[in-house]
Amino acid sequence: MKRISLRAIGTVHNAVREGRQKWGQVTSEIELLPEHAERLEGIEDFSHIHVLFYLDRVSRYERGMKRFRPLDREDLPLVGAFATRSQRRPNPIGLTTVRLLGRKGNTLRVKGLDALDSTPVLDIKPYSPRLDSAPGARLPQWVKTLEGER
Amino acid sequence: MKRISLRAIGTVHNAVREGRQKWGQVTSEIELLPEHAERLEGIEDFSHIHVLFYLDRVSRYERGMKRFRPLDREDLPLVGAFATRSQRRPNPIGLTTVRLLGRKGNTLRVKGLDALDSTPVLDIKPYSPRLDSAPGARLPQWVKTLEGER
Repeated sequence: MKRISLRAIGTVHNAVREGRQKWGQVTSEIELLPEHAERLEGIEDFSHIHVLFYLDRVSRYERGMKRFRPLDREDLPLVGAFATRSQRRPNPIGLTTVRLLGRKGNTLRVKGLDALDSTPVLDIKPYSPRLDSAPGARLPQWVKTLEGER
Repeated sequence: MKRISLRAIGTVHNAVREGRQKWGQVTSEIELLPEHAERLEGIEDFSHIHVLFYLDRVSRYERGMKRFRPLDREDLPLVGAFATRSQRRPNPIGLTTVRLLGRKGNTLRVKGLDALDSTPVLDIKPYSPRLDSAPGARLPQWVKTLEGER
């Protein structure tokens, strides 16, 4: 398969340097390159956006992992990487739907982004309930177990 | 900004060779490289998945467009590329939530994927209502106008 070459459009800034966090309350700034400022026009009319980012601290070893237990929990079943939202995937692209708190020029302020400080950002898309939600979606038991604990 | 190099995990197969379609009824097969088959284990327990794909037929000109009217409609406002779901973006990554009809080995059958035949696929993620839906999201008037016409 051919190589696909992308260039980051900007960078995440927040106080999170490492580790698994409670991300829901984390506020981040996404600073885009100045050349992209114009591309943000009108985004402030959406309350939520998708952020696509490149998980640049995922090791080659993690990228190679094919099956594992979600969160490495012994009580959850072995599943394939593409059946999880883990960062352990061959193309470690993060996809998170976040609340857009505000925009100033080429910088967005968002809440709930699960990306470490200095993470490269690949794309920003507006959230659309019609396109992006799937009411009545079916989930495996292990996801329900995890969500029941929250 | 540094270059990010990715490798496609597979390819879209469908009957759509060009143009803007009514995508909702299109059925596609996503054939992953055989080395990724194991990574799909357990995905059939989800009814919906996100497909991230590389829009490889977007021209350099389109990638450079910063502001335009959604669907080029004169009755809609000029907005920035990142405030739209257009393919006109610097990193033309498509993100679509589709219904998973079935899996056979390293091939998924999905409904509603808006990707042309032979499009390279970057990632597959399970859809999670908790992570991926934003009830009560606020939208600009132009999106409501478009959705009202459907």
